[in-house]
Amino acid sequence: MEEALAEARRKYRNWGRWGAADALGTLNYIDDEKRAAAARLARTGRAFSLAVQLNSAGPRAGDRGLGNPVHTMLDSGLDAAAGTQGFPHGFGDADDVMFMPLRSGTHWDGLGHVYDNKQAWNGRYCADVTTGAGDQVTGAERQAAAFVSRGVLLDAGRALDAGRALGGELPGGFAITEDQLQKVIAAQGPSARIERGDIVLIRTGQLSFCRRLGGWEQYAAGPAPGLSFGALGWLHGSEIAAVATDTFAVEVRPHEFAPPCHLPLHQIAIPNIGLFLGEMFDLEALAADCAADGRYEFLLVAGGLPVTGGVGAPVNPVAVK
Amino acid sequence: MEEALAEARRKYRNWGRWGAADALGTLNYIDDEKRAAAARLARTGRAFSLAVQLNSAGPRAGDRGLGNPVHTMLDSGLDAAAGTQGFPHGFGDADDVMFMPLRSGTHWDGLGHVYDNKQAWNGRYCADVTTGAGDQVTGAERQAAAFVSRGVLLDAGRALDAGRALGGELPGGFAITEDQLQKVIAAQGPSARIERGDIVLIRTGQLSFCRRLGGWEQYAAGPAPGLSFGALGWLHGSEIAAVATDTFAVEVRPHEFAPPCHLPLHQIAIPNIGLFLGEMFDLEALAADCAADGRYEFLLVAGGLPVTGGVGAPVNPVAVK
Amino acid sequence: MEEALAEARRKYRNWGRWGAADALGTLNYIDDEKRAAAARLARTGRAFSLAVQLNSAGPRAGDRGLGNPVHTMLDSGLDAAAGTQGFPHGFGDADDVMFMPLRSGTHWDGLGHVYDNKQAWNGRYCADVTTGAGDQVTGAERQAAAFVSRGVLLDAGRALDAGRALGGELPGGFAITEDQLQKVIAAQGPSARIERGDIVLIRTGQLSFCRRLGGWEQYAAGPAPGLSFGALGWLHGSEIAAVATDTFAVEVRPHEFAPPCHLPLHQIAIPNIGLFLGEMFDLEALAADCAADGRYEFLLVAGGLPVTGGVGAPVNPVAVK
Amino acid sequence: MEEALAEARRKYRNWGRWGAADALGTLNYIDDEKRAAAARLARTGRAFSLAVQLNSAGPRAGDRGLGNPVHTMLDSGLDAAAGTQGFPHGFGDADDVMFMPLRSGTHWDGLGHVYDNKQAWNGRYCADVTTGAGDQVTGAERQAAAFVSRGVLLDAGRALDAGRALGGELPGGFAITEDQLQKVIAAQGPSARIERGDIVLIRTGQLSFCRRLGGWEQYAAGPAPGLSFGALGWLHGSEIAAVATDTFAVEVRPHEFAPPCHLPLHQIAIPNIGLFLGEMFDLEALAADCAADGRYEFLLVAGGLPVTGGVGAPVNPVAVK
Repeated sequence: MEEALAEARRKYRNWGRWGAADALGTLNYIDDEKRAAAARLARTGRAFSLAVQLNSAGPRAGDRGLGNPVHTMLDSGLDAAAGTQGFPHGFGDADDVMFMPLRSGTHWDGLGHVYDNKQAWNGRYCADVTTGAGDQVTGAERQAAAFVSRGVLLDAGRALDAGRALGGELPGGFAITEDQLQKVIAAQGPSARIERGDIVLIRTGQLSFCRRLGGWEQYAAGPAPGLSFGALGWLHGSEIAAVATDTFAVEVRPHEFAPPCHLPLHQIAIPNIGLFLGEMFDLEALAADCAADGRYEFLLVAGGLPVTGGVGAPVNPVAVK
Repeated sequence: MEEALAEARRKYRNWGRWGAADALGTLNYIDDEKRAAAARLARTGRAFSLAVQLNSAGPRAGDRGLGNPVHTMLDSGLDAAAGTQGFPHGFGDADDVMFMPLRSGTHWDGLGHVYDNKQAWNGRYCADVTTGAGDQVTGAERQAAAFVSRGVLLDAGRALDAGRALGGELPGGFAITEDQLQKVIAAQGPSARIERGDIVLIRTGQLSFCRRLGGWEQYAAGPAPGLSFGALGWLHGSEIAAVATDTFAVEVRPHEFAPPCHLPLHQIAIPNIGLFLGEMFDLEALAADCAADGRYEFLLVAGGLPVTGGVGAPVNPVAVK
Repeated sequence: MEEALAEARRKYRNWGRWGAADALGTLNYIDDEKRAAAARLARTGRAFSLAVQLNSAGPRAGDRGLGNPVHTMLDSGLDAAAGTQGFPHGFGDADDVMFMPLRSGTHWDGLGHVYDNKQAWNGRYCADVTTGAGDQVTGAERQAAAFVSRGVLLDAGRALDAGRALGGELPGGFAITEDQLQKVIAAQGPSARIERGDIVLIRTGQLSFCRRLGGWEQYAAGPAPGLSFGALGWLHGSEIAAVATDTFAVEVRPHEFAPPCHLPLHQIAIPNIGLFLGEMFDLEALAADCAADGRYEFLLVAGGLPVTGGVGAPVNPVAVK
Repeated sequence: MEEALAEARRKYRNWGRWGAADALGTLNYIDDEKRAAAARLARTGRAFSLAVQLNSAGPRAGDRGLGNPVHTMLDSGLDAAAGTQGFPHGFGDADDVMFMPLRSGTHWDGLGHVYDNKQAWNGRYCADVTTGAGDQVTGAERQAAAFVSRGVLLDAGRALDAGRALGGELPGGFAITEDQLQKVIAAQGPSARIERGDIVLIRTGQLSFCRRLGGWEQYAAGPAPGLSFGALGWLHGSEIAAVATDTFAVEVRPHEFAPPCHLPLHQIAIPNIGLFLGEMFDLEALAADCAADGRYEFLLVAGGLPVTGGVGAPVNPVAVK
């Protein structure tokens, strides 16, 4: 495994590519022209939110002892109805607060989220990047306007399950390789051709599977379909701006190396390639629409909340076809 | 004042306009065609995030005893550098959590946020809408895909301060009337013409003022420029989808009626018109760009986080010109 | 079951016993004399904390979608060591925050926590007691000084498992009846005799069981040993000030009535008797000490955090023998 | 100032005094005998909670961007009254959560809270003590049973304001020296004599002052009465177990050295002496009682919540006279 990591580092490392001060990584592949072209893909005006709802029954069931978002009211319509709020002239209100792990719903992993042998993106020493005060160099506030591009949906669940034996839901442990990605692209046709600067959304069907069966335990911690470590060459060479999936952690679980092994694709993708990984994207409605009209490209606007120093960015990604 | 409220209710109430089950209010003015047309405004590809950063030094200084967002790390690059995380093969990570009042940064007020004599939007009894479990009818999760439209910036700060005596920053207590809005539109030219379904962004300059002087106390609780109660006729009649400002509460403070008076424009706009109000939008960079090229229209994608039952929706609005 | 509830209400209801304004319930059984006598039980000076540690691996595993306490650092010794804190003359510090459900560690259920047919303790209408702003009448801040009394440990786990077949750990579903409580008292001798105003701590052994086996899922949601509904007569008649156990919910699970049934003992004990129930008390070290010296009485000081309006009170109960 | 710090380190450093593994610092002065003797001081049974209430209007007004505790309901009596909770047989409930900086109410500063030139208590390297995961060596969970001792109230506010010109409230900037402490002790008589292992509570009157005038801004950040740096010799030599005041930070503000200067007494007391400092103790009711009966000693039970790794411990201290 160390050899595989070493080879991947050697081949895919983008350090210095966008200057020493860079805080955007592969988002640099997106430029004004790309954004303008992406906007032209929004032809019909149909819009889709790709975010899972944030609530205490959500998909982050206890990962590392953390829970789901907890949303509570400071006061509500019940208080207003009771007449105890003390406002004049018939005014009433409701207000609320939330506590959430930044990675407990649909989110982007920030560049400061994962390190490779104490090195963060661009070769920085991890302790110089992220301290108790958060990410000082590549925090979520620095990419707030950057996630606007052409989005392409690769519906691996549907395309790789041609006979529909699985109902379009890949099983846990299913590793999506570069070959399989190419197969999906070919099956979906020209609108699925990947270009520099695209944000690629890969649907495995696992979110649908867990939602249908009502159990999130497997989603957060069990076997999951996802990208193969071997797909890193494609992730790097295709010069995409970001990749997101409908799973908890993008990459296949169990991992493809012998234990102890922890998120090896993350370890190359984030600190070495500078690639943004999106997790827990809800691609169901968008995928149904794409399957219906055969068009897999769209405008994607997916900038996360600019939490200062955040190593994760909760996001409501919106696709417009 | 009661007469003014009564008259406004009589003239501007949209109850039933979009059916009994409606959860979108004035967002109904946006349709596929509107969204497609809006996308065509993204010609140059320049993108702007309109969100203030979320951190504990933010603009919500103590309103109602609440504070700003608090973002803390579970572990950081310092832990990874110390070698105490226990991961294999050189893997290291950082992770984080956040606590925030939903209205502590850039946000949309939800339809369940304000009531008029115990009635919420569409004439519903407020206690049937928002309970201790949040907004059961019009929660933030229901508008996640709906905030995509033509955005128009009305830079009242610049246009109403023609001589630049104020540096483009309207003073506290400055009430923006319908006449003044028309004056801004006229000054800005054809690209600022307001159409049905637009999302209107009004820059007063107060965010710039407070940021420049380093004090948020006035921003959250002191005098503020903002919409006049008299502007409600225009807000209703222009059939806009939403309106947002760079202030804490959209409407002018002190209010234009004798105390006790609390957010009278909110009381008509939210439960009666069904209008979405956006607060604490950072319009500075966008406004500078519009002033430079004279084009005040753009694609705006501004769907908030889908907090289930949220009466507020934190959002990273993105404008693309 | 309705008959059992009705009979219990009729027999055990203490409404009005301590006046209309009462906020102390059975804590009224404790007076200065009782406290002074309790202090005289602290003869050797051996002190025991009865609180479980508060952390994200704690015993509240996902009950109602909520998690355990989440404790995070604002900055730490790693930041101080890195020299990035900006303090003068070699000063460094660490600081922290916490998010917690009030019932996620060792706590007292407040009188405003449970209602019986919309009636709270003392016959108050539940909506007049607890609103979105918390418990307005019997909140945790009102009992802050009241939990000082003679404590008595009833080690049901040890006494009812005379042959030690269970290792002193009663199994899930084991209902502790009044007869069994009397048996425990008899087995433990004179120091375990219960008197008016005592705070009774009942050890079932379940905390030890779950800790030993490393699984909290059963603790929060599965079968549990606990007080029988039939023990309510004794809880009422003995005029104790409070009762606490080492389980998640004091009463036996599954409940002794046919489903649907939810916490029937709570429904009588809290709103009708006005009895304080303590949950998740860690009685292991204290129980070992009592088993060793045969003395089961002690001074107990167990006032919870005075969260204004709290319907639960996190507490670090301290016993001194 | 560096000389003063250096001299204080040389004279008062207790490193190694209780062994290399120590996690109790000056709490080691308390033993079983001390606790048993302390319990004998609880003669009348009158009990006092010394904690400020925890709510969003509390005394921590914005220190370092942090706020007060925020307590919110998950559901309340309003929900139970509305009949929407879905429980059987007339059961209803209310439940709540809290977010709080650990130092936002009455609390003990932990030994891992402050460092002196990167050294924590007992000479440990600060980065080895407190990481992103909290205090690994001296966290709050390790002192949970240790704060039981003789408490002594030194009412400096009353004793040093003999003519009552100040109403028993010392002004901001009033530095309490060793001489003045001796004067207080002498004025209060034999029950105020300080002995090894005592927990000393010093009332300045500032909490009363701020509460009376309704403003917390000064409390958290403005001038405050408090211990003089010169009192460190007494704090060390008297071999007390802990000291607490009714102020935000125990020591006098402004500090007695030229700026830049930050909490110099903390810098010696915590990492060098190993002394526990208690802050924001509400001593008003206790002080009135002591003034009335002339007895200033009592049993004090003041163990904080055992937050694993906490560098602060929220506490409800209870005094029994």
